[in-house]
Amino acid sequence: MSNEKQVAVKAVLDFWNSRIKEADTLIESLTDEQLQKEVAPGKNRGIYLLGHLTAVHDRMIPLLNFGEQLYPELGDVFLTKPDKSGAAMPSVEDLRARWKNANSKLATHFNNLKPEEWFEKHTSVSAEDFAKEPHRNRLNVVIGRAGHLAYHVGQMVFLKNK
Amino acid sequence: MSNEKQVAVKAVLDFWNSRIKEADTLIESLTDEQLQKEVAPGKNRGIYLLGHLTAVHDRMIPLLNFGEQLYPELGDVFLTKPDKSGAAMPSVEDLRARWKNANSKLATHFNNLKPEEWFEKHTSVSAEDFAKEPHRNRLNVVIGRAGHLAYHVGQMVFLKNK
Repeated sequence: MSNEKQVAVKAVLDFWNSRIKEADTLIESLTDEQLQKEVAPGKNRGIYLLGHLTAVHDRMIPLLNFGEQLYPELGDVFLTKPDKSGAAMPSVEDLRARWKNANSKLATHFNNLKPEEWFEKHTSVSAEDFAKEPHRNRLNVVIGRAGHLAYHVGQMVFLKNK
Repeated sequence: MSNEKQVAVKAVLDFWNSRIKEADTLIESLTDEQLQKEVAPGKNRGIYLLGHLTAVHDRMIPLLNFGEQLYPELGDVFLTKPDKSGAAMPSVEDLRARWKNANSKLATHFNNLKPEEWFEKHTSVSAEDFAKEPHRNRLNVVIGRAGHLAYHVGQMVFLKNK
């Protein structure tokens, strides 16, 4: 039923939007100095996780067939390399802006998709494989990335009162 | 379309199952002694998070209309009270077993649901409200709880090598 399709899309989008809101509220509550600290002794710093999440969300733009990435240069520092690799990083201020921009671009596209377009394949799966595995669609990407965000927000919350 | 309904249910169930598998792999890799430690200085201990997740998943059983909770007594210690409240806790060994049992009971019910039954209301919403808010269904509960699990697994992972 068309109704159930729309209901499923709404459930996933509500989940995504809630996780983004939770992350935004946390990140905005943290100072630049707090974001420079490790979330736990010897673990990633807040700035690395902010850059990592920004890079992952930015990559969702081409993955969901919404166009070019905004910040492909983030991949090397925040996806390939671990934290404290010595590689130069953008400032926290800059990353805060990129984080908002990447999510804003995604939101614009999300709001313009028709329910059935959520069930179209993402760009990392071939048409042949998609015929056999129809769950490899946009909806599935968004669920997975929202879970990834929740995982790291659970860590970044430790920066509060640091 | 019925096909899209099934695809959406599969996406959510795959997400749930992946998060459970990730959590199980982590929890099984941690010793009882590691689970007695705080995930970060001054934060919850592993045993508390394991009990908390077990209590939350156990409550999903009545919430999804699958019957009675297995361990209602966990709510006071792991939902109402914070960690280190002084309240008596089950042993780690006991909690490991309850964690598996609650998830196993959920899995049995999940596997028996027809796709359309995922779109039925959960038990915390009235029929009147559900008519206006049809996304307050079983599928929505499972997405949200899988995100909750990811959040805490992101914290428990810090117990590795402790």
